[in-house]
Amino acid sequence: MMEQYRSMIETALEQYSEDRALAPLFVESMRYGLLNGGKRIRPCLLLCVCEMLGGKLEIALPYACALEMIHSYSLIHDDLPAMDNDDYRRGKPSNHKKFGEGNAILAGDGLLTAAALLLTKQNGHDEAKQIILRAALDMVSGQSYDLNAIARNEDTLHILHAQKTGALFRAAVAAGAVLADENTDIDRFAELGEKIGLLFQMTDDLLDAEKDSAEDKFTYLTFYGSEKTKRYIYRIEQKILSILEPYHNEPAHELKAVVRHMTNRTE
Amino acid sequence: MMEQYRSMIETALEQYSEDRALAPLFVESMRYGLLNGGKRIRPCLLLCVCEMLGGKLEIALPYACALEMIHSYSLIHDDLPAMDNDDYRRGKPSNHKKFGEGNAILAGDGLLTAAALLLTKQNGHDEAKQIILRAALDMVSGQSYDLNAIARNEDTLHILHAQKTGALFRAAVAAGAVLADENTDIDRFAELGEKIGLLFQMTDDLLDAEKDSAEDKFTYLTFYGSEKTKRYIYRIEQKILSILEPYHNEPAHELKAVVRHMTNRTE
Repeated sequence: MMEQYRSMIETALEQYSEDRALAPLFVESMRYGLLNGGKRIRPCLLLCVCEMLGGKLEIALPYACALEMIHSYSLIHDDLPAMDNDDYRRGKPSNHKKFGEGNAILAGDGLLTAAALLLTKQNGHDEAKQIILRAALDMVSGQSYDLNAIARNEDTLHILHAQKTGALFRAAVAAGAVLADENTDIDRFAELGEKIGLLFQMTDDLLDAEKDSAEDKFTYLTFYGSEKTKRYIYRIEQKILSILEPYHNEPAHELKAVVRHMTNRTE
Repeated sequence: MMEQYRSMIETALEQYSEDRALAPLFVESMRYGLLNGGKRIRPCLLLCVCEMLGGKLEIALPYACALEMIHSYSLIHDDLPAMDNDDYRRGKPSNHKKFGEGNAILAGDGLLTAAALLLTKQNGHDEAKQIILRAALDMVSGQSYDLNAIARNEDTLHILHAQKTGALFRAAVAAGAVLADENTDIDRFAELGEKIGLLFQMTDDLLDAEKDSAEDKFTYLTFYGSEKTKRYIYRIEQKILSILEPYHNEPAHELKAVVRHMTNRTE
């Protein structure tokens, strides 16, 4: 089922990113950053939660795609020399290595703008739009904390991750829920999204540490060490599964499987 | 009256850019780029056209501010070393000179996101929101043409200016009109905005040329020369005044005065 969501998202992103009125190189650089084999975790989460709560996939799809466009723009800008200075992204040259720094800045600006434009083209559901764009703003704030981190302590780490990584996960689940039901308990689903984001971040940190590829990175491992992080991950997984406990339809089973897979993933 | 619009816009931008949930340095760098004594031409145009057509200023104000936030973000990213590489903006260090490149990239991303969020917080008026965000996308496309210009011919120049400078002027007037009256003839006001943007661009080029500060810039002067540009400016002015001819209220008189002032400006 996740594979089905992913395929819907790929098709839609392919269509949304075509625009013959724009400079061809601009469109090419945006599509290079957007259509690059990403796992589409955030938009899949949005669709899955929406369907779990009885919402319509065709209504949720543009919101899921806008969220992924925002994620993609953030990776392009994150890779820039003035930020993380990464030459590669998923085994291919990063956007500025391929198109030059100026074009990479514009590609990111364009994807963010296209995401916002896509949202305003949808009828109603203002709360879902605001949840996604507020998360996009919080994410940049998290990047700012990361870039300028002075006091590298446990509190900073929590704020940094809650905003930088957590914001889009939180928005994915909260927007999916509110798209299914306008009167839903948003806070409950925002919390679920936050926990899933945290689980994702921590298992990522753990994998990085095991690969020895994160020696001077500032992660949960730095403070908790491997064993304590694993126990923490287990506790978060239990919390997520307890929030999902009342749901028994197919998307709910799928989501539980994804969470278990995330916890036990080895790559 | 323009002074009154400008003062409303300054006060609103001041309020909209305060956000205690975000990283303080991030907010500071956004505000440095936004609250820097700009002339606020685009948002003033939006308010003026809206009032000329009987619209309400308090409804139009957030849209005007979003437009100015988009303009401000574009200046921050334009000044970056990978783009125009400008160390100064209005006599002060440009954003990246003051905060560093990474923070300037984030400040621009943040202002664009905050503009989109502000738009989605307004009730209804989806067309005005889409006009503004579509213009923001066209503007980036124009920047891409500018950055990668290969064939520097008259056609390129027109596309470049229509998108890079023209898009936000077009959006200012069209959004102001549609906010006043949902059934208005948008194309007519989009054309008016385009002409005002062109007038602004050409008089700017002319001033730059007279100051000898644009020797290797790619402008209308390069193709038309000073005399032909002046005749072109006169024709555009006449066209704008003919579109505005049917309107006789105070905002209309003000707008006509602004257009005449633009044509005859010496600084």
